[in-house]
Amino acid sequence: MGYEFDEDTRVESEGAGLWRAHVTSSWDAPVGPPNGGYLLAAVARAMGGELDRPDPVSITAHFLAPAPHGPARVEVEPLRVGGRHASAVATLRSGETEVLRAMGVFTDLSRANGPTLLLENPPELPAPEDGVSTDAEGGEDIRGRFEFRMRGRDTAWVRGEPTGVGEWRSWARFADGRPMDTLGLLVTVDAFAPAVFDLDLPIRWVPTLELTAHVRRRPAPGWVRCRVRTRFVTDGYFEEDVEIWDADDHLVAMSRQLALAPRVDP
Amino acid sequence: MGYEFDEDTRVESEGAGLWRAHVTSSWDAPVGPPNGGYLLAAVARAMGGELDRPDPVSITAHFLAPAPHGPARVEVEPLRVGGRHASAVATLRSGETEVLRAMGVFTDLSRANGPTLLLENPPELPAPEDGVSTDAEGGEDIRGRFEFRMRGRDTAWVRGEPTGVGEWRSWARFADGRPMDTLGLLVTVDAFAPAVFDLDLPIRWVPTLELTAHVRRRPAPGWVRCRVRTRFVTDGYFEEDVEIWDADDHLVAMSRQLALAPRVDP
Repeated sequence: MGYEFDEDTRVESEGAGLWRAHVTSSWDAPVGPPNGGYLLAAVARAMGGELDRPDPVSITAHFLAPAPHGPARVEVEPLRVGGRHASAVATLRSGETEVLRAMGVFTDLSRANGPTLLLENPPELPAPEDGVSTDAEGGEDIRGRFEFRMRGRDTAWVRGEPTGVGEWRSWARFADGRPMDTLGLLVTVDAFAPAVFDLDLPIRWVPTLELTAHVRRRPAPGWVRCRVRTRFVTDGYFEEDVEIWDADDHLVAMSRQLALAPRVDP
Repeated sequence: MGYEFDEDTRVESEGAGLWRAHVTSSWDAPVGPPNGGYLLAAVARAMGGELDRPDPVSITAHFLAPAPHGPARVEVEPLRVGGRHASAVATLRSGETEVLRAMGVFTDLSRANGPTLLLENPPELPAPEDGVSTDAEGGEDIRGRFEFRMRGRDTAWVRGEPTGVGEWRSWARFADGRPMDTLGLLVTVDAFAPAVFDLDLPIRWVPTLELTAHVRRRPAPGWVRCRVRTRFVTDGYFEEDVEIWDADDHLVAMSRQLALAPRVDP
């Protein structure tokens, strides 16, 4: 394999629904614990292995505790195994700490058949070479794992100038050249700064209560385009919606998180 | 209590995370098994009871088998119980059949505090008295439990004339006058015909793979306004997004389902 993402989400079966994993520090939030989407990707790899279906068409995670770095284990319980789809719940544990609980349904998307109709177009944004790079080349946290090319306005919040629109648009790919795939999409949907920071609200820390990602199709080679949006902040609760499109103009993933702002004890 | 919804989602604790429930036929799909949102509401009532927090801010369900009518039981496993929020997983069983598995996080929304900012307005639609009634007064399935007042164009699909927009807009309330609340929203988000039927696609049966509902606020008294949308059908997979607004123009719920079209073995 050799790519960072594959090494860092590697899992090994120990039989009977048990999988060994290893949480590295390479996907840590800039100031914080390992990224939730990274952890979910490792868990999904174990679930897909247990169910013998590689693609998570829908997966939901509840994050229960920050993940310590180091050895971890995934316990997978199959729920329903049908002809094409199979579902399972899974637990990620590190020592005695339960880090997250996930529930998902998996399939082999290369065998999907059915109608396609896209009523909206991919987000418009400048060509990657004209976008603003937010890379941290060789960086030791998650920012070093991706290349992003954003619209210029989407970086104004860093200077304390949110636009009030609540939306980012960016190209993304793995920094080490790894092709995007359906497991990679799970970390990509969670790799952006919260779009709520583009709103003029007194918000700093935004714990995620729940994340659900739908993977619609195996992405074509090349950059993916991402749109990250928050439309409704209600009494401190807000959604973060992400849509990801591939180089063939196909929607490949949608996700929604429910998060809290400002800091309250979740 | 006396209201249909409360009677039909009643649960009784048997201790140690076990709850008795009873699946009635009053919330059956027009031609089909009990409605998924109805089942989820009963499960959420047990989860909220076990966690001593009434409001499901996020709840996800995977539907595993059609629910038989009659006695059922809910097994609730708390995951994380914090100061304000508490999460759990739950199983609905009828005899030896596992009907659904749910995961959710609950709170007391009357104590929510934090900023509010709504970047989009409630959907525009004619006043309830000018809407098209799709009631089946006293009907024996779920259509008899609600009053809907839809835009006229949103009923054209029934005559074989889909608009191609993929969106319904409707007022809704319980037919027996029961006030809407956060558990009632869970059946309301699943009470509509699939908006994918408004697209010109050869689709008949649309099994749900997963449903996640976010409840944002306790609804004000009166009608709620609902927007039901499908934007992306990809190789037979599609999302159905529902937003519900209360009489005070506040967003009170958002939901998303991942469903399949046309019929394939899920």
